[in-house]
Amino acid sequence: MTYQPGWHFLQVPGPSNVPQRVMRAVDMPTIDHRGPEFAKMTLGLFDGLKRLFKTSTGEVVIYASSGSGAWEAAIENALSAGDKVLMFETGQFATLWHQMAGRLGLDAEFVPGDWRHPIDPSIVEARLSEDRAHKIKAVMVVHNETSTGVMSDIVAIRKAIDAAHHPAMFMVDTVSSLASIDYRHDEWGVDVTVAGSQKGLMLPPGLGFNAISKKALAAAEKSGGRRSYFSWADQLAQNRDGFFPQTPATNILYGLRESLKMLDEEGLENVFARHIRHGEATRRAVKAWGLELQCVDPAACSPTVTTIRVPAGQDADAFRATVLEHFNMSLGAGLGKVKGQVFRIGHLGDFNDLMLAGALSGVQMGLGVHGIPYNDDGVNVALAYLGNAAKSAGKPLAYA
Amino acid sequence: MTYQPGWHFLQVPGPSNVPQRVMRAVDMPTIDHRGPEFAKMTLGLFDGLKRLFKTSTGEVVIYASSGSGAWEAAIENALSAGDKVLMFETGQFATLWHQMAGRLGLDAEFVPGDWRHPIDPSIVEARLSEDRAHKIKAVMVVHNETSTGVMSDIVAIRKAIDAAHHPAMFMVDTVSSLASIDYRHDEWGVDVTVAGSQKGLMLPPGLGFNAISKKALAAAEKSGGRRSYFSWADQLAQNRDGFFPQTPATNILYGLRESLKMLDEEGLENVFARHIRHGEATRRAVKAWGLELQCVDPAACSPTVTTIRVPAGQDADAFRATVLEHFNMSLGAGLGKVKGQVFRIGHLGDFNDLMLAGALSGVQMGLGVHGIPYNDDGVNVALAYLGNAAKSAGKPLAYA
Amino acid sequence: MTYQPGWHFLQVPGPSNVPQRVMRAVDMPTIDHRGPEFAKMTLGLFDGLKRLFKTSTGEVVIYASSGSGAWEAAIENALSAGDKVLMFETGQFATLWHQMAGRLGLDAEFVPGDWRHPIDPSIVEARLSEDRAHKIKAVMVVHNETSTGVMSDIVAIRKAIDAAHHPAMFMVDTVSSLASIDYRHDEWGVDVTVAGSQKGLMLPPGLGFNAISKKALAAAEKSGGRRSYFSWADQLAQNRDGFFPQTPATNILYGLRESLKMLDEEGLENVFARHIRHGEATRRAVKAWGLELQCVDPAACSPTVTTIRVPAGQDADAFRATVLEHFNMSLGAGLGKVKGQVFRIGHLGDFNDLMLAGALSGVQMGLGVHGIPYNDDGVNVALAYLGNAAKSAGKPLAYA
Amino acid sequence: MTYQPGWHFLQVPGPSNVPQRVMRAVDMPTIDHRGPEFAKMTLGLFDGLKRLFKTSTGEVVIYASSGSGAWEAAIENALSAGDKVLMFETGQFATLWHQMAGRLGLDAEFVPGDWRHPIDPSIVEARLSEDRAHKIKAVMVVHNETSTGVMSDIVAIRKAIDAAHHPAMFMVDTVSSLASIDYRHDEWGVDVTVAGSQKGLMLPPGLGFNAISKKALAAAEKSGGRRSYFSWADQLAQNRDGFFPQTPATNILYGLRESLKMLDEEGLENVFARHIRHGEATRRAVKAWGLELQCVDPAACSPTVTTIRVPAGQDADAFRATVLEHFNMSLGAGLGKVKGQVFRIGHLGDFNDLMLAGALSGVQMGLGVHGIPYNDDGVNVALAYLGNAAKSAGKPLAYA
Repeated sequence: MTYQPGWHFLQVPGPSNVPQRVMRAVDMPTIDHRGPEFAKMTLGLFDGLKRLFKTSTGEVVIYASSGSGAWEAAIENALSAGDKVLMFETGQFATLWHQMAGRLGLDAEFVPGDWRHPIDPSIVEARLSEDRAHKIKAVMVVHNETSTGVMSDIVAIRKAIDAAHHPAMFMVDTVSSLASIDYRHDEWGVDVTVAGSQKGLMLPPGLGFNAISKKALAAAEKSGGRRSYFSWADQLAQNRDGFFPQTPATNILYGLRESLKMLDEEGLENVFARHIRHGEATRRAVKAWGLELQCVDPAACSPTVTTIRVPAGQDADAFRATVLEHFNMSLGAGLGKVKGQVFRIGHLGDFNDLMLAGALSGVQMGLGVHGIPYNDDGVNVALAYLGNAAKSAGKPLAYA
Repeated sequence: MTYQPGWHFLQVPGPSNVPQRVMRAVDMPTIDHRGPEFAKMTLGLFDGLKRLFKTSTGEVVIYASSGSGAWEAAIENALSAGDKVLMFETGQFATLWHQMAGRLGLDAEFVPGDWRHPIDPSIVEARLSEDRAHKIKAVMVVHNETSTGVMSDIVAIRKAIDAAHHPAMFMVDTVSSLASIDYRHDEWGVDVTVAGSQKGLMLPPGLGFNAISKKALAAAEKSGGRRSYFSWADQLAQNRDGFFPQTPATNILYGLRESLKMLDEEGLENVFARHIRHGEATRRAVKAWGLELQCVDPAACSPTVTTIRVPAGQDADAFRATVLEHFNMSLGAGLGKVKGQVFRIGHLGDFNDLMLAGALSGVQMGLGVHGIPYNDDGVNVALAYLGNAAKSAGKPLAYA
Repeated sequence: MTYQPGWHFLQVPGPSNVPQRVMRAVDMPTIDHRGPEFAKMTLGLFDGLKRLFKTSTGEVVIYASSGSGAWEAAIENALSAGDKVLMFETGQFATLWHQMAGRLGLDAEFVPGDWRHPIDPSIVEARLSEDRAHKIKAVMVVHNETSTGVMSDIVAIRKAIDAAHHPAMFMVDTVSSLASIDYRHDEWGVDVTVAGSQKGLMLPPGLGFNAISKKALAAAEKSGGRRSYFSWADQLAQNRDGFFPQTPATNILYGLRESLKMLDEEGLENVFARHIRHGEATRRAVKAWGLELQCVDPAACSPTVTTIRVPAGQDADAFRATVLEHFNMSLGAGLGKVKGQVFRIGHLGDFNDLMLAGALSGVQMGLGVHGIPYNDDGVNVALAYLGNAAKSAGKPLAYA
Repeated sequence: MTYQPGWHFLQVPGPSNVPQRVMRAVDMPTIDHRGPEFAKMTLGLFDGLKRLFKTSTGEVVIYASSGSGAWEAAIENALSAGDKVLMFETGQFATLWHQMAGRLGLDAEFVPGDWRHPIDPSIVEARLSEDRAHKIKAVMVVHNETSTGVMSDIVAIRKAIDAAHHPAMFMVDTVSSLASIDYRHDEWGVDVTVAGSQKGLMLPPGLGFNAISKKALAAAEKSGGRRSYFSWADQLAQNRDGFFPQTPATNILYGLRESLKMLDEEGLENVFARHIRHGEATRRAVKAWGLELQCVDPAACSPTVTTIRVPAGQDADAFRATVLEHFNMSLGAGLGKVKGQVFRIGHLGDFNDLMLAGALSGVQMGLGVHGIPYNDDGVNVALAYLGNAAKSAGKPLAYA
């Protein structure tokens, strides 16, 4: 065993860094998940999650699962085998969700995409308008594509659905946006929101979430979906009293209690502004290095993850290995179609200006060590931007 | 907030007490689950789990889920909707698994039981022998019924299946037996073993396991089961290189690495002997108090959990509340049909003689405080038994 | 390495069990001990400690040291080489403090004792009355002798000093009583109280404390004591603003913040009552076993530690080794004059009825395994006492 | 309470960042410090510390104290009140040690210095040569002045003592050099080395160390020093069997066991090279910013801490407050004579290239926010240096 000194810079776009306060909360004795202390905690968690998803009329359920378990929950509950749904190829996670939909028996249309643009709301409107028989039961989209760093506009898609006067449910994957990027389940008319623990929520992986509208709940009651582990009805019947139908991941729930508190302390608006600032600083560095962003629509570039193309002839995974070995930093790999062509910098969750400066420094030095041509002012441009932001804020941004 | 001093005695039959070493392992920074350090760890975990399940020809998969997720995995992979299966009403967990089987589309025959006896192997043989068309695709049993403290004889059931010359798969829930009670996946001819993290493995809840025979794998390939999150094929394809198809519960995997090491240090045979000793001591105390065991077959009483009937007219849940309030100890509730009639003492996982003495003392004092008639020599009888065991061992049992 | 399962029963009379909440507080990143966050924490600690020592007119200082460092601080600050002081041989810790006094140049009279009785206040009065020249500068006593389980009566000694109309300072070691046994620095007219972190305060070892009266502070200003590391003046000059003259043991201070909070939650009166109850239960068990207490004055037997004599011909250390090996429990050794003749059960700090039941069970079984003759109703007698206490309290004692 | 997201950059020159592995080791239950498990651990610690101090003929003792406690131990044991010693004003810590020497009764000559240069060995030789009566009992120096970032040359001073043919003991404070900068107790002829836990050893504060030559031990036996808490003889008498004369800071000792292991894993030579590299990178950044180093002798600039002068008219403490508020980074304050004139960057202990990049970025942005004129290429110059070092190393420096 060889010790690599110092913090490991975990710059994959999730799992994100888990704060010490959260890990110490996780590291408390497991208690009886059928006892009064547990119930008291749990009821507070549901309240906090509703505030986070911004739903007052919906419900939130928590699974011991990854985010993809929460995808499955959304499908198994709200839909039935054979149902037609509309999905969009924005990147690898959209592709995986589409693949899952097929496996679980849905008739899932997959609107092709180039992995560099957000969903085009006019296509949503066009496809739904064509569907006069209302055979499409759901529009299923990924808010923030973790594989590409491209964010789709949920409000615009909602408007497109409304413009088509179509009753399809609206289902949104917010795995890499919730608690990092503004998101409003009720106001934006979402029926099922899918999320996970290990990104904006600053938790270890192991929890999946659904926020569920009344419309989706009603659909679930009527659907013939085969479901057991992920049954909303089972969850909600027990959640009411603070319990779960299965053994819950109690220790990660302890962490959730703490992370909800921390998000409150920092203030969600400050959290969102911080992520926007870090996304902008990162993209400025990328451009200054002379590298190309995967996201080609400036308005759609993600505040939580930046996907960067390496020059033709370079292997992005070899570059990532160089950075890992020399600088103790994990960058995100290119997935699926863009494997080897891109690397990703996660800048989400428990993160601040100096961590970003360190991460960008690691990329900059890594480019040099690995022999990828670059201009060496990337970090400096980012620092200038962050420094100005701090200066013009007048008061510390951390407490803004 | 009011602090209740001292250790909480967590005597539910799982989650069991998580050792400090395990919790400190869990409490380490989450790493990139696509990186080399992660893969190295994971490959070791699969090796260790195979030794634990005692399978060299089978595979083991790990889910971010509860044990009931692992139930679902067993069903969705090895079986198809419409398949006939044979199940046995040994208690609440058998009932829940049967309920799940129905929901997931199986045609599940449920042999009735009184919750006080183990499965009768002669019924297994009889039912399978009748099934000349071999429509029964699986025999699905619970090894150790956590709700009743009754353990069924897996070897005898295997023999019964063999005696009937029936090709049905054999599926066994070992949620509350694995790593506490002797269990042998290969030798006993089991096709799918189901387990969870939070009992004998001494981990926080959040992981589910399947051990899978070659026969079950072949069945999965042929079956039309709809599966995605719990797909064995997806898991195995990635596990080979040390990875997972979804984001794994990395921090609990750290804990698993440590708990496997600790089981090796103590020695599995010593672990099993310890649980047998604690089961016996507990039952002696129960009899000395003049209370009645739920398990009426002495050969089938569980080494990991003892279910105790309260006298007619008493509410076991009120008794448990008394014990919790006065003695900072959580006892297991009566579940399903026996709610209010029984309470349960878990004596599994990271547990020793003095913890058991403390737990039995809490029950004994609780009986007095709550006003349930009892003879006061229960603890003393248990101590005499445990003391003699220690004395006759010659060397410390902990290091035996 | 061999894993011994379950909790280790740490029944030495300090270090006591550190609660999980405290350890998780300790396990947070060390911060700048010259920064504003540190100062804010520290000022709260001094307030909390003053409430604990029950002083409003005095000062409290905190050292990175053991309790014996705090002894040295008391001597070096309040006294000068050559000063005459009066000390009492109540046991090993009194002996060590006396030895220290000699080494640091004091002229320390040591009133002999048999290690089985508390200090006789009439001797205090007699010796001080004889000292018409007021050469005796201090009366230095141990409140609760951790080696013998004998507690001296501080109020009675104060009265004896007053009765002698003697101006000597009164210095009291409360290492094994503070935060477990009622203690009142101001009301009882104590000039220097000495304490440590690892007993009633439920902290890891590493902090020493002095509570200091105005009279002692004035003495310190005048004394010619050579002091640097332990200088009160240096401490107080910096403490005022929340800082320390040397690098403080920051992480243990985090723990202190938490333990002060927990003592508040439980309520000091409840803490004291709990220790009295556990002392009584332990002594009843000892008598029932037919063993002999080291403390022969029933009114003086300690609520925090019970020292038990083994029968002639038995080696108490061999007995302790048996208990450690067979039952994973550490008992306290006989120290100094009584080495090998006694063992000690600590029942202080973060402790409850069931932990005590487990500890007494370990002693009872250990007696059997080791072959020391005993009556086997010790645990039962203790349980009867504790159970009755719980029952008659009406409400849970833990929240009383 | 307001949460400031992300890692706090703790860039004071100690306490340094405590690695997670060390904190998790600290966060284990306190055990009986008189039991066999403790003794086994402790004997290993003494072995490891001797390798670290590079002494095979000397002894190492461990105190529950800060580093200044270890200063006091050196004085109280090796010297007697009235002894003449030679000390050198290299900065604040030299000044404090000199002050302590006076308080403890030494006749301490203090060779003046400007806080910007190392000790001049020719003065050592001259002063000792003049002392023909050999009244000077010890030469006492600070290896690495934490307040100024100036390192004195211990080998050269040793040669100067030898050149003067003087029998004085040689005592060296290595609080901010041990385990970060090459140091050799035996080879360099040091009699007492003083160290603490919270810097290169990567531990929480709370332990002080002395390494002691045979000559110093002999002097201690003969000296009339008044000592008790810090007595070497008491320590060594018990250390032999793995024990301590007082209650040790057990949990920090757990951390020490882990940190010694980690230093072995990284390799001490790699640790030293890393600190040299980080010192050089930091000074290059400082020069690029156009700021002035406190250390004016390039050969004497410290690998562990860089002290930087702010331009005339600027208040370094106000600058530090700006950096803390805006960038969640603690810089070291100017101490004593240079208060307000300098700030310090600690780059020692558990630290790596990207942490340094983040820290320097925080200084650079802080200069802008605070309005101190600077050239903005400091970070870039450091990155170029670190990047080249990584590149030219061929293999990862972390595993070099």
